[in-house]
Amino acid sequence: MLRIYRFLPSASRRGFDLKEPLWSGSLTFQQAVSTSAGNLDENLSGKKFASYTVFKGKAALSIHPILPSFSKMESGAYRMNRNGSVMLTFLPAVGQRKYDYTKKQLFALSPTEVGCLISLGPAESCEFFHDPSMKSSHEGQVKKSLSLTPLGSDSGYFVNITVLNNVQKTTDRLSVPITKAEFAVMRTALSFALPHIMGWDQVLTHHPASLASSKHRMERPHPDSEWER
Amino acid sequence: MLRIYRFLPSASRRGFDLKEPLWSGSLTFQQAVSTSAGNLDENLSGKKFASYTVFKGKAALSIHPILPSFSKMESGAYRMNRNGSVMLTFLPAVGQRKYDYTKKQLFALSPTEVGCLISLGPAESCEFFHDPSMKSSHEGQVKKSLSLTPLGSDSGYFVNITVLNNVQKTTDRLSVPITKAEFAVMRTALSFALPHIMGWDQVLTHHPASLASSKHRMERPHPDSEWER
Amino acid sequence: MLRIYRFLPSASRRGFDLKEPLWSGSLTFQQAVSTSAGNLDENLSGKKFASYTVFKGKAALSIHPILPSFSKMESGAYRMNRNGSVMLTFLPAVGQRKYDYTKKQLFALSPTEVGCLISLGPAESCEFFHDPSMKSSHEGQVKKSLSLTPLGSDSGYFVNITVLNNVQKTTDRLSVPITKAEFAVMRTALSFALPHIMGWDQVLTHHPASLASSKHRMERPHPDSEWER
Amino acid sequence: MLRIYRFLPSASRRGFDLKEPLWSGSLTFQQAVSTSAGNLDENLSGKKFASYTVFKGKAALSIHPILPSFSKMESGAYRMNRNGSVMLTFLPAVGQRKYDYTKKQLFALSPTEVGCLISLGPAESCEFFHDPSMKSSHEGQVKKSLSLTPLGSDSGYFVNITVLNNVQKTTDRLSVPITKAEFAVMRTALSFALPHIMGWDQVLTHHPASLASSKHRMERPHPDSEWER
Repeated sequence: MLRIYRFLPSASRRGFDLKEPLWSGSLTFQQAVSTSAGNLDENLSGKKFASYTVFKGKAALSIHPILPSFSKMESGAYRMNRNGSVMLTFLPAVGQRKYDYTKKQLFALSPTEVGCLISLGPAESCEFFHDPSMKSSHEGQVKKSLSLTPLGSDSGYFVNITVLNNVQKTTDRLSVPITKAEFAVMRTALSFALPHIMGWDQVLTHHPASLASSKHRMERPHPDSEWER
Repeated sequence: MLRIYRFLPSASRRGFDLKEPLWSGSLTFQQAVSTSAGNLDENLSGKKFASYTVFKGKAALSIHPILPSFSKMESGAYRMNRNGSVMLTFLPAVGQRKYDYTKKQLFALSPTEVGCLISLGPAESCEFFHDPSMKSSHEGQVKKSLSLTPLGSDSGYFVNITVLNNVQKTTDRLSVPITKAEFAVMRTALSFALPHIMGWDQVLTHHPASLASSKHRMERPHPDSEWER
Repeated sequence: MLRIYRFLPSASRRGFDLKEPLWSGSLTFQQAVSTSAGNLDENLSGKKFASYTVFKGKAALSIHPILPSFSKMESGAYRMNRNGSVMLTFLPAVGQRKYDYTKKQLFALSPTEVGCLISLGPAESCEFFHDPSMKSSHEGQVKKSLSLTPLGSDSGYFVNITVLNNVQKTTDRLSVPITKAEFAVMRTALSFALPHIMGWDQVLTHHPASLASSKHRMERPHPDSEWER
Repeated sequence: MLRIYRFLPSASRRGFDLKEPLWSGSLTFQQAVSTSAGNLDENLSGKKFASYTVFKGKAALSIHPILPSFSKMESGAYRMNRNGSVMLTFLPAVGQRKYDYTKKQLFALSPTEVGCLISLGPAESCEFFHDPSMKSSHEGQVKKSLSLTPLGSDSGYFVNITVLNNVQKTTDRLSVPITKAEFAVMRTALSFALPHIMGWDQVLTHHPASLASSKHRMERPHPDSEWER
């Protein structure tokens, strides 16, 4: 029988007993992005951030979704010009329930990598490889891999990240065991996020024209262009 | 063959033949929350409440979702500062189709506990333990446990709550059998609620900046910060 | 191998080669509802209707969702006072690709009945019974039953409705075979509709207060009332 | 163990190393539609486009959702008058990572065809047949078929399109192997899109009347018209 213990009082659950940098972390990173392009605070106004974090003995794993971006065309329409992603942030433990945000390792899942995770069988493994500098003069300097391997007995997965830096001659490894229940949260959240990071929710839920122009629509040729060619 | 009988006339289905306190219950609790902080009625304005309730011979079980809360940062962005949850309310029966709301027992499911329920196999059990006073001087005074155990033959679960009060020397136990169909409703509703109580829907569906600043976006460094470090 | 043939030209697919009353049907029914309460056209303004219809040799089956209703409380909040439902409309065939809307039979699925359908195994059956007049003087005059029985070989279901009228001494039976693909559409649409007919989407996606009152929120007692009791 | 390699640097991932016509493709097609009905650019304003594309050695496959359309009734309500669809676009490769958009082949999936794909077992096949000119004088001139056949070992599917043109005496065939992870993306995106192309999301998320008329609602006859007949 699976048992989950949660004896934290509400006050503790609000604040979490963790290094402060962790909790301001995802926002600090976002601020860094906007600051580097000048004063873009007005773009952050109203933006929202939320992550799901699993704290274990040797490391913590936090995941949060990143929106796709759209660019405006001459026609006034918008086309997605970059997929969103789901960012995995690994934090090494530096004491009991303390994690060092400055030594974080990041791995951004593409839609297809998300598809891989949500279809993973309980006894299956998967591994993704990223090279941030491929096709540039720095190709091969940094290599990242993310793998999920089963804990056994349908009880969850180890999530492992390895970052090999050939310049600094360093290899960082972090591993976080996640339970079946935690993976169910991730699978559900990733499945929910997937159509959003693909931009499909924005395509499918913005329909002003469908109402405003129903008369014009009738006079138009069939928009189902399969038959047009 | 599964058979479901629903012979209630429409008038009865509107009002439900139950003690009135039950049906004003979820709202009464919300009003108590706002009243205790002064006149916050304007905050309730427009707020909506809905629950799914299963009425059985010895007790009823009602579930409803609770939104996460976000706090505004200096940058103008919002960060989730508390997860939402799914509240389970147990009500003992005090007569035929009458339930006593004043003797209710509550259990708030965290995202991970929700993940546990929605991934529960038909023959699996799970149990959660809460201590509202942990890490305070009242630690151990009240202990709550919630368990789901299979009814057998893939026909549903017993949902059991036990509340042990070491000060009042009382133990309250309530148990509600739920059918496979009722669990399918709960599983679907919990799966739907999960990304919302995690705050991910608010992150993923608020995208004013993605449109307004498409030009500026082009000049910015790559927001996929995996490659930045 | 499953094969689906769709040789309809686009013009035919727009209009469907059916008795006009069918296609104005779902709206006619809605208009009847509003008309019976006087001139409520302003309430229909902006309302939208869409159904999924399967046309077979002896009958057609159309399904469409019905929203729950909320009532305003003194506090300014809204509470769901009636579940939504998913309406099944059966239409007998009266010729090749012609169906008689005036002889329709209706069956409104409650959330739990929807839960039953979406969790139905490929070899399982289910049956629902409704008596519109139960607990009134007309109890037993009309009895409805809806059943799903497997077509065999994981290839879909027969959906059957029987309406027994003890006053008119009539029994109407309609049966529509639905393929595995059509049932997948219904299962997906019903799973999508379920949190909406339960009102949970309205609870979870209306969150003005979560932003406006973040400071006040901090001063409030913990809203997770599990710990309050 | 499944391994996914993604060594593209961010700059490359932004632009994709492809023939420009591909990337302006989905929009070009939309512009063609609107242009053919005159200057309808104002209808495109605010409209959004996003697709999911899989690039393989001999061909690429891109999928994007198309919204249903609603028409306004005399009552002020809107009724869906055409289902949406999910468009599959096949592009033959004309060089390394270059695809010819002018030789594209299109196939628009109906809701039932989407239902077929999302319920396809790992060892199952399916095939759809379209004739754009059926029931017209051009019937049989062009025949299209789309099939999915398993790659074997639960590792994905071949997606094949055949377009037979009896006038031009040509047969075009394109085939794209998709991995299990890519199919998981498609299945999740198609499942998400299905209620939207059926119009159900618009029915279920537009509920102004449910709030404005709660008093009137009480005086109305039961809207659950199952009992009305």
